Amino acid sequence: MIAALGNPDRTFHDLIVTDSAVNRLPPKLVHNPRIVSLQELDSTVGRDSVHQGVALQVSLLPERDLEPTVFACAEHNRPILFLDQVTDPHNVGAIFRSAAAFGVGALVTQDRHSPAETGILAKAASGMLENLPWVRVTNIARALDAVAGHGYFRIGLDGSAETRLDQLTQDTRTCIVLGAEGAGLRRNTIEHCDCLARLAMAPGCESLNVSNAAAVALYDRTYRNL
Amino acid sequence: MIAALGNPDRTFHDLIVTDSAVNRLPPKLVHNPRIVSLQELDSTVGRDSVHQGVALQVSLLPERDLEPTVFACAEHNRPILFLDQVTDPHNVGAIFRSAAAFGVGALVTQDRHSPAETGILAKAASGMLENLPWVRVTNIARALDAVAGHGYFRIGLDGSAETRLDQLTQDTRTCIVLGAEGAGLRRNTIEHCDCLARLAMAPGCESLNVSNAAAVALYDRTYRNL
Repeated sequence: MIAALGNPDRTFHDLIVTDSAVNRLPPKLVHNPRIVSLQELDSTVGRDSVHQGVALQVSLLPERDLEPTVFACAEHNRPILFLDQVTDPHNVGAIFRSAAAFGVGALVTQDRHSPAETGILAKAASGMLENLPWVRVTNIARALDAVAGHGYFRIGLDGSAETRLDQLTQDTRTCIVLGAEGAGLRRNTIEHCDCLARLAMAPGCESLNVSNAAAVALYDRTYRNL
Repeated sequence: MIAALGNPDRTFHDLIVTDSAVNRLPPKLVHNPRIVSLQELDSTVGRDSVHQGVALQVSLLPERDLEPTVFACAEHNRPILFLDQVTDPHNVGAIFRSAAAFGVGALVTQDRHSPAETGILAKAASGMLENLPWVRVTNIARALDAVAGHGYFRIGLDGSAETRLDQLTQDTRTCIVLGAEGAGLRRNTIEHCDCLARLAMAPGCESLNVSNAAAVALYDRTYRNL
């Protein structure tokens, strides 16, 4: 929530807080909190959401265009991460967090078959939804070609690939592409990658949780530059 | 479920399946399934559990003793992973999966302040709960000393450490110790590590989801040997 309050791209609607949590708010808040009962807060954020007695109602982040975002990434040689139909908001949130930690400049998803910008995703992202540009595109394959036009080498992660990621040379501009658990990358997505690679794993193990796979792949490509 | 059926350490009680899922069961099952309504299956596994129309009721895995497990790990120079009060079953399950993928020989947790062996944990572990020995100990610090007695170098992961994990030399026998998100490692746990190290991260980023941190740390220590 503190990260959202510091994000100039956000518009704020309402800051609600329970009586017992109001003293834990940071001082000098620009927004006056509205004190509500725990029941009202629960029903506002949804029964399954975990909260600490406070909720901030915000506008969705403005949509990002692909071209200027990729241009900015290329300028600083920052990696770009594509998620091809990864749908679980906990996983996508954790991926936001890891992507920011490993210096990724933008996350690209399809506008369909991807999670919406919800509280669950924002919580799993642990503030990083505010820091990492998120581009939603209609067509992943076309977006991959646009990224290649800026000199990016596109690596699709595929457990059955012959090449091991750690054995690939480091490129100046790396784009990592991850598919959904189980289904993996779609054929048309694969055709717009420059190379497929797998993570080094013990024999008999086929895959990781998708957020763990993303973290490991990004680490492999970036830790030498961090 | 298939992994559990293949585990000789498991005792099976009941295999229940809905009418519409019975044809999707693998052939030659030793256990005769009992066909139930979707409502009965839902109420058996719990409303929040995700299932595919089938549930296997099993005994808990037998308890593992620390000494013989560490002895077996040391014999093959397999890494050992300690979790110090990591409580979320989704995270611990994902960690099981990554630990198996990166060749870990045993997972050690405290018997208190750790998740129970539940369906949620088993599902997140994606079969690897059956493959990776899990030792629950009363006292983490004492267990760390036992592990050191077998020639293991114990690295505690700590975001504020000066040393970077990737800059440490590779040890023959590595033990990685992770604390809970937020709280981190407890003081007494730190005192029984040989070294603290942090993951290489972009400036301003402090931490990862604990399962992502575990995956990255294990990858850093093992991919050269996989």
